Amino acid sequence: MLSFTNDYSEGAHPRILERLAATNMEQVPGYGSDHYSESAAAKIREACDAPEADVWFLVGGTQTNQTVIDAVTPPYAGVVAATSGHVNVHEAGAIEHTGHKVLTLPEHDGKVDADELDQYCKDFYADGNYEHMVFPGTLYISHPTEYGTLYSKAELEALAEVCHRYELTFFLDGARLGYGLTAEGTDVTLEDIARLTDVFYIGGTKVGALCGEAVVFPKGNSPKHFLTLVKQHGALLAKGWLTGLQFDTLFTDGLYLSIAQNANDKADQIRKALVSKGYELAYENPTNQIMVNMDTATIERLSKDVEMGFMRKVDDGHTIMRLCTSWATTQEHTDQLIALL
Amino acid sequence: MLSFTNDYSEGAHPRILERLAATNMEQVPGYGSDHYSESAAAKIREACDAPEADVWFLVGGTQTNQTVIDAVTPPYAGVVAATSGHVNVHEAGAIEHTGHKVLTLPEHDGKVDADELDQYCKDFYADGNYEHMVFPGTLYISHPTEYGTLYSKAELEALAEVCHRYELTFFLDGARLGYGLTAEGTDVTLEDIARLTDVFYIGGTKVGALCGEAVVFPKGNSPKHFLTLVKQHGALLAKGWLTGLQFDTLFTDGLYLSIAQNANDKADQIRKALVSKGYELAYENPTNQIMVNMDTATIERLSKDVEMGFMRKVDDGHTIMRLCTSWATTQEHTDQLIALL
Amino acid sequence: MLSFTNDYSEGAHPRILERLAATNMEQVPGYGSDHYSESAAAKIREACDAPEADVWFLVGGTQTNQTVIDAVTPPYAGVVAATSGHVNVHEAGAIEHTGHKVLTLPEHDGKVDADELDQYCKDFYADGNYEHMVFPGTLYISHPTEYGTLYSKAELEALAEVCHRYELTFFLDGARLGYGLTAEGTDVTLEDIARLTDVFYIGGTKVGALCGEAVVFPKGNSPKHFLTLVKQHGALLAKGWLTGLQFDTLFTDGLYLSIAQNANDKADQIRKALVSKGYELAYENPTNQIMVNMDTATIERLSKDVEMGFMRKVDDGHTIMRLCTSWATTQEHTDQLIALL
Amino acid sequence: MLSFTNDYSEGAHPRILERLAATNMEQVPGYGSDHYSESAAAKIREACDAPEADVWFLVGGTQTNQTVIDAVTPPYAGVVAATSGHVNVHEAGAIEHTGHKVLTLPEHDGKVDADELDQYCKDFYADGNYEHMVFPGTLYISHPTEYGTLYSKAELEALAEVCHRYELTFFLDGARLGYGLTAEGTDVTLEDIARLTDVFYIGGTKVGALCGEAVVFPKGNSPKHFLTLVKQHGALLAKGWLTGLQFDTLFTDGLYLSIAQNANDKADQIRKALVSKGYELAYENPTNQIMVNMDTATIERLSKDVEMGFMRKVDDGHTIMRLCTSWATTQEHTDQLIALL
Repeated sequence: MLSFTNDYSEGAHPRILERLAATNMEQVPGYGSDHYSESAAAKIREACDAPEADVWFLVGGTQTNQTVIDAVTPPYAGVVAATSGHVNVHEAGAIEHTGHKVLTLPEHDGKVDADELDQYCKDFYADGNYEHMVFPGTLYISHPTEYGTLYSKAELEALAEVCHRYELTFFLDGARLGYGLTAEGTDVTLEDIARLTDVFYIGGTKVGALCGEAVVFPKGNSPKHFLTLVKQHGALLAKGWLTGLQFDTLFTDGLYLSIAQNANDKADQIRKALVSKGYELAYENPTNQIMVNMDTATIERLSKDVEMGFMRKVDDGHTIMRLCTSWATTQEHTDQLIALL
Repeated sequence: MLSFTNDYSEGAHPRILERLAATNMEQVPGYGSDHYSESAAAKIREACDAPEADVWFLVGGTQTNQTVIDAVTPPYAGVVAATSGHVNVHEAGAIEHTGHKVLTLPEHDGKVDADELDQYCKDFYADGNYEHMVFPGTLYISHPTEYGTLYSKAELEALAEVCHRYELTFFLDGARLGYGLTAEGTDVTLEDIARLTDVFYIGGTKVGALCGEAVVFPKGNSPKHFLTLVKQHGALLAKGWLTGLQFDTLFTDGLYLSIAQNANDKADQIRKALVSKGYELAYENPTNQIMVNMDTATIERLSKDVEMGFMRKVDDGHTIMRLCTSWATTQEHTDQLIALL
Repeated sequence: MLSFTNDYSEGAHPRILERLAATNMEQVPGYGSDHYSESAAAKIREACDAPEADVWFLVGGTQTNQTVIDAVTPPYAGVVAATSGHVNVHEAGAIEHTGHKVLTLPEHDGKVDADELDQYCKDFYADGNYEHMVFPGTLYISHPTEYGTLYSKAELEALAEVCHRYELTFFLDGARLGYGLTAEGTDVTLEDIARLTDVFYIGGTKVGALCGEAVVFPKGNSPKHFLTLVKQHGALLAKGWLTGLQFDTLFTDGLYLSIAQNANDKADQIRKALVSKGYELAYENPTNQIMVNMDTATIERLSKDVEMGFMRKVDDGHTIMRLCTSWATTQEHTDQLIALL
Repeated sequence: MLSFTNDYSEGAHPRILERLAATNMEQVPGYGSDHYSESAAAKIREACDAPEADVWFLVGGTQTNQTVIDAVTPPYAGVVAATSGHVNVHEAGAIEHTGHKVLTLPEHDGKVDADELDQYCKDFYADGNYEHMVFPGTLYISHPTEYGTLYSKAELEALAEVCHRYELTFFLDGARLGYGLTAEGTDVTLEDIARLTDVFYIGGTKVGALCGEAVVFPKGNSPKHFLTLVKQHGALLAKGWLTGLQFDTLFTDGLYLSIAQNANDKADQIRKALVSKGYELAYENPTNQIMVNMDTATIERLSKDVEMGFMRKVDDGHTIMRLCTSWATTQEHTDQLIALL
């Protein structure tokens, strides 16, 4: 059985496992105060061209979104997100659990539009009753989005400008950041993200690590006592080196980007095959998630050999399915899938 | 430099690393719905002699305490703990962050006394104003305690009886459970704990795993939609198999208990040496944490070669220090430490 | 200057003030355990034809929504409301502050549609990922709505049926309930509401009281230790008799309904005048809130003599304004307003 | 039946009722933006000699403690209070409900000791694990305390100094402030409190108002968007003028202090009588709460004619009872009580 369900089915890149084995009996201090975490942070700072950046390692995506948003959003404010944003839909209310409302804007291929954000803020402060409402305090975007689409540099700059004007903290969820940075045609670099956002994270769980997300405050702008806040959210790993060492490996010799590139290459092959065979893609996107409209008969036929993700029903006979590649997707599996399509 | 600072300095038992490597490229479903987690749960059910038990795998200790206590404690209630309880002192307010007060009772060598709990509950309901106060809703104990001490079976039975009478949920934090179960002289088994408590967890992080705690609701009494609650607390691992596989390994061929035994053996050797050399132990306890009263000169001398943990100052010239062994402590390091003492 | 801005501009019905004066030096027990609160509850039970009902007196609307929704909604669930619902827009995030997401459905003249609610719940449970999402736990509606519109009995029955089927708690915000019950053409009685909902409140602040809302759990189905929960939300009045006595007065000799009737009568006169003078009503509704589309010139002209509420801009030249009558609106003011229109 | 149970049994000072009646049909804007609230705030500023002060009117004591503490305490911090502090014991966990731990210090006649606070903070920052603990963020004291005792000016100055040194917000709960300011022998004035604390409130509910507490940020140091925070806590009164007008009345012609003086005078008479008749006072205090040790026979005898408050059992035969006077206590009732003693 082939699986293209998601990008967190396999373990970790072999170099990570090797290094875990090699260092297993070393005694290192806890809670992220170890030399692996320090080294990883230094490499990330360099990759971001952000020498002042604070870097923290958390374990998973929802945990990171919850901890960061709660830490940066004032108590009178909420977080603005696309209706399709992960924090709005698939986090079991983790954001509201910390007391903050998710304020939604329409999604455009999964993205927030800067003009609409601008208008939202403008209308908010123009409303005579705004003190009775939830202030827009943080902007949440994902890059790539939940639909695999990407912002352009101009779009990020426009969002940053609106955030700056209305005092919103600009937060970018990079759970799949590697796949975004290495996508064909993107003009957005890690340096751009570090320059334009107030906080973002570099996803490890979906890009080669066993687990782990690297949170970056690029201007050294961590919230006060952030380590305590992380602990308070149950998100502080005793063996902090476990995530530190993984990111240290991923940010050595360009491993993070090169393994991400693999996922996009394989996805491009599959997309090409799909189009050539007459399938309709639900979104134009250059990253590792392929959203494709399939009729019921095709789904039934493929499901005998391939596990796919379910996105949403279109009508009685059609469904948007997700085919997901990853750092671990082999050429062999890709060929088998294409043959089956 | 020797380190006896804590029991989470090293990685994982080699068998776990081997198995991670062997299964690395297998594609498994997410969020704990995989066959490793299922197998681990089955083995834990058997070890607990609790065929109805629900088993969940979380990542760390504070996270587990927070998620479980919030899930089982009614909104009008708090959690009763010893003043020395981890939830009261060293979790950065993670419990209160979810809205629940920690109600404290005096600690006796780190333990809660059943009679005092009984009296507390009796006084509570006898107070005409009790509806204006926080109800005792959950009892939290750690076993071993933060001081390495253990409850006897009779003590656990007495606590269970009080909990039953006043409708408290009995929760046992087993972050170091292995070290408790294999301690010399204990009459408490895993089956006893499963029989007497309403929920407990089997610690992995400090007993041979990279990370992970196995939460057990021994009577199949999980709170409704517990998976959603775990997600909402940011505690649901995408790669749930990572913790499942580790516990599956630890609960194969008695590995969990045998590696825990090692820590106690080494600690016993050290304790014996300490006593014979005239050191004063701060607590009588048979597990892997040794609390010893040292004068400043001794601390300075030892600190050149050994990292120790700080517990608390006794007076200007004396401090309680902690020496911690673990599943990973070698005979060689133990001998070196003893020689230095 | 005339004011038709809102329905909470004046004090209380004179009979309430008289009674406050008459009983001022009586010594009564605190926190709602007094005979006025008891008497008021008995009268409300009778008016609702709900002999088992629990009745609680809180101080204000947002406070009541927050306390009730938090108390009845499970931790894994949110509250479903129309996008225009007060809890979604104008409560400064009070609901999310207690950890619950507001899940929105489209508003139809301010109302939730039972078929859409049904579909929402159906889709929710059909989604393979629903355990990662916020469960629909409570339905919130306002009656009258924020736009002054009313549900029909058939609509309430349809909503109750869906709630029952999907285990939602049906909560009706009756901040302006009096104006709804006495509106021309309504077929909904207090008994219907007590029969169909799981919890609702009878608004006092906007219908003749200085302050106060009477929360009714019509089947004696108060959440466990609700008084403690009220206290925990900062919503328990030391002088509970203050709200009790006011509701006792309002529910004596039909005062509540007769003073509500006054507001509707005056609003009907104004609506008739508006229509006859060619104004366009934004909503067809029979209660005390009149939503009218005005051009900028008219607004400027009227604003010299009348205070009105702002609802929303339609286009550059037009705005929906709100004219609000109340229990206190006099015929004289009504005539003056009509003359000005 | 006489009642000396508490100081919130009666309604309001007659001048308040008269003024409510006189202004009843006036149309005033909502949410505290009215001229009564403005006038009250101006008078309070003057009485505090704090021209920059922000003044807000809330409804009740627990609500005020909850809203203020949550607003001023950073997320990583808790509130330090005496074990006997109202926020620690009798608020049903309202503080923890907002996510903050109550950190307790021993009580000395209900008071926090500045040296102990100093030591607590010193020890906290000296602990190598302090980032894993709840920071001391706010100091809560009540004046008068729950036992009717008072701080001296020197004691307040010492607390202020420690707060300043460790960056704690100094919050004084003045639910019974009037009784403190007019007590015999006190050297603490309203100006002192405004000078020394960061935020405090002037209690109305227990000192002549139907309801209401005036929160003062004496240096104009309100938390950002405090009105929104008040709303979010369900604490914003639609008819804000109701509390504003009451405080405007209380702060006209010294009414607040003169009616508070009455309570203390009556309490002094009772205390004198108690002592002369051989009763033992549990606390030496000069305010309106009398704590007296009574044997069971005396309690039974008195309870036929007098309602008293229960404080706590001393032993099988003795109980500390509370006799409470108030602004409303008459000489006649006082004489009757003394005769009965």
